[in-house]
Amino acid sequence: MRTQIAIIGSGPSGLLLGQLLTEAGIDNVILDRVNKDYILGRVRAGVLEEGTVGLLDEAKAGARLHAEGLLHDGFSLAFDGRDHRIDLYELTGGRRVTVYGQTEVTRDLMERREMSGAPSIHDAINVTPHDFDGRSPFITYAKDGIVQRIDCDFIAGCDGFHGASRKAVPERAIRNFEKVYPFGWLGVLADVAPVSHELIYANHPRGFALCSMRSTTRSRYYIQCPLDEKVEDWSDDRFWDELRRRLPAHHAEALTTAPSFEKSIAPLRSFVAEPMRFGRLFLVGDAAHIVPPTGAKGLNLAASDVHYLFSGLREHYQERSNGGIDAYSQRALARVWKAVRFSWWMTTMMHRFPDTGNFDQRIQEAELDYLTHSRAASTALAENYVGLPF
Amino acid sequence: MRTQIAIIGSGPSGLLLGQLLTEAGIDNVILDRVNKDYILGRVRAGVLEEGTVGLLDEAKAGARLHAEGLLHDGFSLAFDGRDHRIDLYELTGGRRVTVYGQTEVTRDLMERREMSGAPSIHDAINVTPHDFDGRSPFITYAKDGIVQRIDCDFIAGCDGFHGASRKAVPERAIRNFEKVYPFGWLGVLADVAPVSHELIYANHPRGFALCSMRSTTRSRYYIQCPLDEKVEDWSDDRFWDELRRRLPAHHAEALTTAPSFEKSIAPLRSFVAEPMRFGRLFLVGDAAHIVPPTGAKGLNLAASDVHYLFSGLREHYQERSNGGIDAYSQRALARVWKAVRFSWWMTTMMHRFPDTGNFDQRIQEAELDYLTHSRAASTALAENYVGLPF
Repeated sequence: MRTQIAIIGSGPSGLLLGQLLTEAGIDNVILDRVNKDYILGRVRAGVLEEGTVGLLDEAKAGARLHAEGLLHDGFSLAFDGRDHRIDLYELTGGRRVTVYGQTEVTRDLMERREMSGAPSIHDAINVTPHDFDGRSPFITYAKDGIVQRIDCDFIAGCDGFHGASRKAVPERAIRNFEKVYPFGWLGVLADVAPVSHELIYANHPRGFALCSMRSTTRSRYYIQCPLDEKVEDWSDDRFWDELRRRLPAHHAEALTTAPSFEKSIAPLRSFVAEPMRFGRLFLVGDAAHIVPPTGAKGLNLAASDVHYLFSGLREHYQERSNGGIDAYSQRALARVWKAVRFSWWMTTMMHRFPDTGNFDQRIQEAELDYLTHSRAASTALAENYVGLPF
Repeated sequence: MRTQIAIIGSGPSGLLLGQLLTEAGIDNVILDRVNKDYILGRVRAGVLEEGTVGLLDEAKAGARLHAEGLLHDGFSLAFDGRDHRIDLYELTGGRRVTVYGQTEVTRDLMERREMSGAPSIHDAINVTPHDFDGRSPFITYAKDGIVQRIDCDFIAGCDGFHGASRKAVPERAIRNFEKVYPFGWLGVLADVAPVSHELIYANHPRGFALCSMRSTTRSRYYIQCPLDEKVEDWSDDRFWDELRRRLPAHHAEALTTAPSFEKSIAPLRSFVAEPMRFGRLFLVGDAAHIVPPTGAKGLNLAASDVHYLFSGLREHYQERSNGGIDAYSQRALARVWKAVRFSWWMTTMMHRFPDTGNFDQRIQEAELDYLTHSRAASTALAENYVGLPF
């Protein structure tokens, strides 16, 4: 088989890139080692920047998002027993975020891909990129016991942190930057109305808590926990009790609970690989970088990578210029590092670190005090939260 | 002897408080263990916030400052070989800082005190505050071999980090917060025109550098150095060479040098003691808190303490209300911690830390990139630099 762009990975970044390319008349094939149900079974966050929403619209996959997504004009930073609202809309001159689950984004993109007839190959074993240093890259994989080959012009590695794309790059050609945080997030999903119509990020002496939601009837709650904590030690009752302790009293009293139908612990990590281009192989999204979930930048960062790569590829095919693809790594990384910095900063400011001394604890309190009382500092937070421009 | 306020320490905070009290008709005596020449021989920075200038005017000690001080509308953050100007005036709606040496501030306040006739006692040995927990505090000291006693209503401890005031407080009553930075500043004074008319804060792979000045003909330059560095190992030539390496090329080329007449290494430290009031003893300025010199907050923070304490004492004597002095510690500390946070942040962002991993280094670069390209973030820096409101 031959295509113009071989996309490895059928998560939201691979699907979004594929649909943008298809809409622009550029052939592409998406390969994934797992099937659609597996992908749609993943639980992921869903706070979308306007730039991300714009790309989904451009991919003609935005209709349900606009009908069902929740527009949020602000969120709350809770500490010292009180809410401090960050008015995103007012501080950023009218920008908002949209709460819409990543799983739903993926579902909409998959449906759109099916409608467009562009090929997706699932359950592909040993997907491997080859010869991306030369002019004729190709991908091999096995399907139903038979090794297959796809020749292409370019390869887009959209296969996540553990995917084959980054692993195909020689170690000497790549530089990794990493920070592992000394805690995780214990999260539950429950079909219950959220305690507040906006997100609450809470900094409490017992640890961080986040009140989030997927819809007006489905809540997503998290609490910071030690990394060696075990999910099975956390009954629903224990989780709700601990969450209540970490929220301002009026929220704790208003919290409605229900049996959780998902409960898991996720570690927090920052990771960046440089560069993001190796000849005719481009890394996109989680394949190149991971951010902790504080601030919800993961999916949005994948979307901005897609934006830069798609622009470059379109320029290559339609204008016969390599300017865009040559600049891809640098452009993407400039925005990646700003979002990595923001996510690291928000994580640092909102969590309790086990090894923090009393000086650093006061600095954290002074930062929250300053941040919520300075319009300039609140604006800096808000502009990062709604998303820096592409 | 009896007075209303006994002030320990004849540095700028003690002198400023004394003159404000004298102008308000409140009796005060200043005690210092050293003489005037010793105090005026200390080399200190001198970037004054408008609030500080306002207090000096209120103390009728601002005339020479207004005639000779340099008004600065901005400063430069230099990194990656380039200048990035922070336009203080434009970002803060018309606020500036005044460059005027702390030694000159002290000299002006001393002259004013002499004119006012208010008593200052120098070369006082073993100055010790007593009974500040009760209603009748007093101070003892020895002068010319004779032990003297001053009875007073209140004691103001303006005697710096190593002074007797904080040491007189029982350990159990005080909580200390401290951070020691793993580097120092090697500074020189030279009678030469400054390389730029505004300050340059430079972040360079070889370490931080600061180009500052006392006047249009006297420059003050610093470079970050390891703590175990020895001044005698630094010839003037070696200093100028190292400074040039850390500056953008156009500054390095423009740098004029001259023999230095002061050269010293200062460690960098953050320190806060809580609370700042113990009965009838108030800690003011460096006696209660130390900031690293990055951002020039030390003297300005002492001035804001003086403002809160003077307001409280005036209220006590003129309105017979203890509201101001009862709120002193909380009000002062709220502003102290914001300035301590700002100084810590600016120090962290501008220096190279010996134990910084590659992730943290990239975060620093991303922060500088974001900061200099975001109006909101630049404004947050600027509003702290010109001074948060009292």
